[in-house]
Amino acid sequence: MGKRPDFVQLKEVGPRDGLQNEKQFITTDDKVAWIDMLSNTGVTEIEYSSFVNPKWIPALADAKEVGKRIKRNPAVVYSALVPNIRGLENALEAGIDGASVFMSASETHNVKNINKSITETYPVLKQVIDEAKKEKKKVTGYVSTVFECPYEGKITPTQVMQVCDQLITSGVNDISLGDTIGSAVPSQVELLLDEILKRFPKEKIIMHFHDTRGMAIANIMTALNYGITRFDTSIGGLGGCPYAPGAAGNVATNDVLYLLHGLGISTGIQDKKVQEASIFIQNKLGKKLPSRSLAYVEGTG
Amino acid sequence: MGKRPDFVQLKEVGPRDGLQNEKQFITTDDKVAWIDMLSNTGVTEIEYSSFVNPKWIPALADAKEVGKRIKRNPAVVYSALVPNIRGLENALEAGIDGASVFMSASETHNVKNINKSITETYPVLKQVIDEAKKEKKKVTGYVSTVFECPYEGKITPTQVMQVCDQLITSGVNDISLGDTIGSAVPSQVELLLDEILKRFPKEKIIMHFHDTRGMAIANIMTALNYGITRFDTSIGGLGGCPYAPGAAGNVATNDVLYLLHGLGISTGIQDKKVQEASIFIQNKLGKKLPSRSLAYVEGTG
Repeated sequence: MGKRPDFVQLKEVGPRDGLQNEKQFITTDDKVAWIDMLSNTGVTEIEYSSFVNPKWIPALADAKEVGKRIKRNPAVVYSALVPNIRGLENALEAGIDGASVFMSASETHNVKNINKSITETYPVLKQVIDEAKKEKKKVTGYVSTVFECPYEGKITPTQVMQVCDQLITSGVNDISLGDTIGSAVPSQVELLLDEILKRFPKEKIIMHFHDTRGMAIANIMTALNYGITRFDTSIGGLGGCPYAPGAAGNVATNDVLYLLHGLGISTGIQDKKVQEASIFIQNKLGKKLPSRSLAYVEGTG
Repeated sequence: MGKRPDFVQLKEVGPRDGLQNEKQFITTDDKVAWIDMLSNTGVTEIEYSSFVNPKWIPALADAKEVGKRIKRNPAVVYSALVPNIRGLENALEAGIDGASVFMSASETHNVKNINKSITETYPVLKQVIDEAKKEKKKVTGYVSTVFECPYEGKITPTQVMQVCDQLITSGVNDISLGDTIGSAVPSQVELLLDEILKRFPKEKIIMHFHDTRGMAIANIMTALNYGITRFDTSIGGLGGCPYAPGAAGNVATNDVLYLLHGLGISTGIQDKKVQEASIFIQNKLGKKLPSRSLAYVEGTG
């Protein structure tokens, strides 16, 4: 256990990981207006869309247009999910500061998700990483199912370490460790971080929690106790769970801010602007988002 | 910080703290059927109702009939909320194993809630405690707003300690510390427990969290790290927040069990029976309960 940090950096993944898991298509105009609101919350990185084939993620089929139309705040890093070199070309045309590549720590999940074994995935990502770096873009490596896989069950820290090692060797700047199905409890976070932090400096590690069983804030608290300073969050808790309709998805930016600011940890992000952007997208979706803090603020008017 | 416990005891407060904050009246038949389900989950204590004047809590106006009709499982302690000697008489007639007296760590909240100053409250509780002990009943002292009061703002550990000292001196068996408005973050739990555990053995301390801003599981995790072994929880997260319509109330038994069992901590409680009892009361209320784990389980069907 380390000292809790004084400053934490959040990456807003609502426009990508959030919308990707919502059934409803948000119009390009609304996406652009909303991302522009997010750009003014004080957040320093926004994953604004995905350049995965629209056949797989129709909700984000307008990634290129969104990228071209959003107003770039120079204080914000705009990144996007990029599966392969073709996706990277589109992303570069649309404008990105960073590319996020992705794979799974579980062999089966990786195959189901990207139709390749883990070993077959590395060269595909390596090509993206090399090309992105040539263009002076930063690259984040997402590793999904780092605690549990919906097909294989528990994943060991050793399996995760192997993938992380390979990604770091391939040149990613940092790694985001994803509790993709939102099943971890704090003891699992401790076990993984005990291993990970032996090998990598904590600045390279981003934790990406889903709140599917309500554990995300406790898991983030645990990571903070290990000195972790970077988390992925989604505004309002936008984004469901593909394995359980009606269940919660990404941890809500709003709830994480309530935690961090309550702990006296700075983020540079303004709660009120996050609320406004949450209510905007909630109205567009026409349903309540899962964030508890948002529900409280709305209830108290 | 201590060692995390191997066994944790939950008190199911759904029939009292949960229903008390729901607008809808659940019929006596349904309450009895539901509490009988709860009696078979493996939980060792159930707060089955409140003997506060029904004028103040109409949802629990049938406390006496409920107490008389539920099937007593000898492995379960049946307790009820008792405000004064008149309430205790009714509770004794209905049958209780334990009485819960209550007051606030905040002067203003205490006055608003029970129309007496803190000092004026002690003799009223003392009378209940003495009489209950004469009848060989255990007595728990609820202290509400131990972190923050909706009227006075932050409450200091010193204020809480003063009330706890007086309650222990008055003869309560144990104390339940309530984050009544669900506003605490883990650093506040640490500050309070640092003080409380200097004075009282941890076995006498029960933590009672509300999940209003989504912090309850992280706060429970923090308390577990201090070796706390007793928590109040409400099935499905039943019970809203009187200060914010639509906001979450008591922490959900389901989510706490997911945490505890995931950590390898025993409770003696069967998840599946808790789910069944959650779905029973959810159907009676005709609305989704806030528990994330319950929503997940329902989604995966």
